[in-house]
Amino acid sequence: MGNSLEAIKYANGKLEILNQLLLPEQFIYEDCSDSVKGWNAIQQMKVRGAPAIAITAALCLACEVNHIKQQMSLQSLKQFIFDKLDYLCTSRPTAVNLFKMAEQMKFLINKQTDMKYSELANSEQLAQFFIDQAIGLLAKDIADNKAIGNFGADCFSHLNSVKILTHCNTGSLATAGYGTALGVIRSLFAQNKLAHAYATETRPYNQGARLTAFELVYEKIPATLITDSMAAFLMIEKGVDAIIVGADRVVANGDTANKIGTYQLAIAAHYHNIPFYVAAPSTSIDCTKLTGKEILIEQRPAHELTHLHGKQISAPGISVWNPSFDITPAKLITGIITEFGVIHKTDQEFKISNFLNAKI
Amino acid sequence: MGNSLEAIKYANGKLEILNQLLLPEQFIYEDCSDSVKGWNAIQQMKVRGAPAIAITAALCLACEVNHIKQQMSLQSLKQFIFDKLDYLCTSRPTAVNLFKMAEQMKFLINKQTDMKYSELANSEQLAQFFIDQAIGLLAKDIADNKAIGNFGADCFSHLNSVKILTHCNTGSLATAGYGTALGVIRSLFAQNKLAHAYATETRPYNQGARLTAFELVYEKIPATLITDSMAAFLMIEKGVDAIIVGADRVVANGDTANKIGTYQLAIAAHYHNIPFYVAAPSTSIDCTKLTGKEILIEQRPAHELTHLHGKQISAPGISVWNPSFDITPAKLITGIITEFGVIHKTDQEFKISNFLNAKI
Repeated sequence: MGNSLEAIKYANGKLEILNQLLLPEQFIYEDCSDSVKGWNAIQQMKVRGAPAIAITAALCLACEVNHIKQQMSLQSLKQFIFDKLDYLCTSRPTAVNLFKMAEQMKFLINKQTDMKYSELANSEQLAQFFIDQAIGLLAKDIADNKAIGNFGADCFSHLNSVKILTHCNTGSLATAGYGTALGVIRSLFAQNKLAHAYATETRPYNQGARLTAFELVYEKIPATLITDSMAAFLMIEKGVDAIIVGADRVVANGDTANKIGTYQLAIAAHYHNIPFYVAAPSTSIDCTKLTGKEILIEQRPAHELTHLHGKQISAPGISVWNPSFDITPAKLITGIITEFGVIHKTDQEFKISNFLNAKI
Repeated sequence: MGNSLEAIKYANGKLEILNQLLLPEQFIYEDCSDSVKGWNAIQQMKVRGAPAIAITAALCLACEVNHIKQQMSLQSLKQFIFDKLDYLCTSRPTAVNLFKMAEQMKFLINKQTDMKYSELANSEQLAQFFIDQAIGLLAKDIADNKAIGNFGADCFSHLNSVKILTHCNTGSLATAGYGTALGVIRSLFAQNKLAHAYATETRPYNQGARLTAFELVYEKIPATLITDSMAAFLMIEKGVDAIIVGADRVVANGDTANKIGTYQLAIAAHYHNIPFYVAAPSTSIDCTKLTGKEILIEQRPAHELTHLHGKQISAPGISVWNPSFDITPAKLITGIITEFGVIHKTDQEFKISNFLNAKI
């Protein structure tokens, strides 16, 4: 990980998350060692980013399971884990990683506790199994992101020096570490191929200004902050080579839910003939949904737009529309950078299931 | 003016401007009765909006001229006015109205003080002439805006009920009164034809959130605030019928300098096949420049983006790009709504000079 930031710290049965609402002013880790604390941290966006949400949910529950394992039978602990996973899934609706993690955990636990093949004899063993799985997610996400970073950097092998525009925060703070879209920027920088990174402010929650800018300054990556509204003008004035964003959910046809503003960036990229990449681990891919129309878009409270640090920054009484995400149609996306490689279009369509089936 | 707001108040040789940096929290008029106060108010954006800047410059100087007229000869007062007009023109570079006002004033004064045809016998008369001209600008801008509002509303005569998205603030606060793009929204509302107005927040100075939202709430116009990044998603989710923006400068071919973010909105409108109108008085049109490339774009200080109310809202140490305006090419503009009518394209080109020559 070198000198990059850690959003999620797990050690000795305790989970701490960096409260990202306080960044960049304050750098404070908060205990998150049970499911209620985890739910609140996710819902309040103290921790955010599709991969980070899923890992936080798994690890907060792992801490809780570790704490209570001796008080329960195998069956009651299993039920407890299933109920808590369902509860954690109610924290935020759009990123798929959380739901996939919960499903995968249930699948594995069901398999391990199946009468015929049972390998877990008691609650102690089930607890340890769940904890190991949760810890495994943390390590796997970092490895996946480094692979994404390298596959992403390879997309620019024909260029000596590239200018990348990114949106929101997809870095160490949004993942277990390294990052997805920001991981590609990190890889390009490590390969001495990054001319410049441009980060959008990302209203209304300013993840770009607060978090991405923080990571870029922290790692001394040459970077400039712009408002969301400047992106199209930047493309012609500064000559951006590619836009790379993360994803909260990529569905079967390649339609992608990501932070609000992504769709507008993709349209501007399309207009200027600039490649537009989505960088996301396979945990963000949801082939159970065929198109973006099936994705539920989270609406956030009005005050997140009208207030900043508790202070009103817009006219009192005005109505607000505050979708947290939008859907970028596959036709505006050049490629999807995963830990298995880059998914390109065949006959103008992404064949995501085919790609993943061949890799997994 | 009914119940709409006044950004500029002139009476009895005194000029007051509403300090828009303090809106919506505080509603404070500040004395602006000399050219130094006027220059500072414009440069610091206490008063902003292309028409309002020009009128403030003329009126602050009118106050000063009124005050000192008896101490000067006709020639020295003329020179004083010319020098002060030049000085006021250094306050902000992009909006053309200020420069056109200064030129027009010089032209009229030269004409009136020409030896052969002189109608002004002394400094007292020159002062009164200048003051009358400046006051005239205030009245003319309101009349022009009402004409723009009505011509703009006529663009939607084929619809019963329209949803309009606008950017930045082009209302009573950006003009002498009524507004340009917001004037069209006012006219549609007055005609009971406005389904809904959507206002972008307009980072980094939040003129939409602070000023447009304030005007819309003040006049009980049905309206919703969005972040700049939501516009494209709004277009498909809510079914916007047209985007209408103001202009800081429209050049001969129709290329338009306007608040940063306008270009990105125009691209999104184009992608969704939604009409994109520029509403601007002829004082914002500069046919001395042939294309948008010739327009000087003002760069504003970084702290206007990184700070809000003096508080840092982005990571310390990050570089910033902060152009105050961008250029929207004529090809993305459906029509230019002026006080003389709507300029449409002929053979895919705006013939702005032809249109204006036929009207003036």
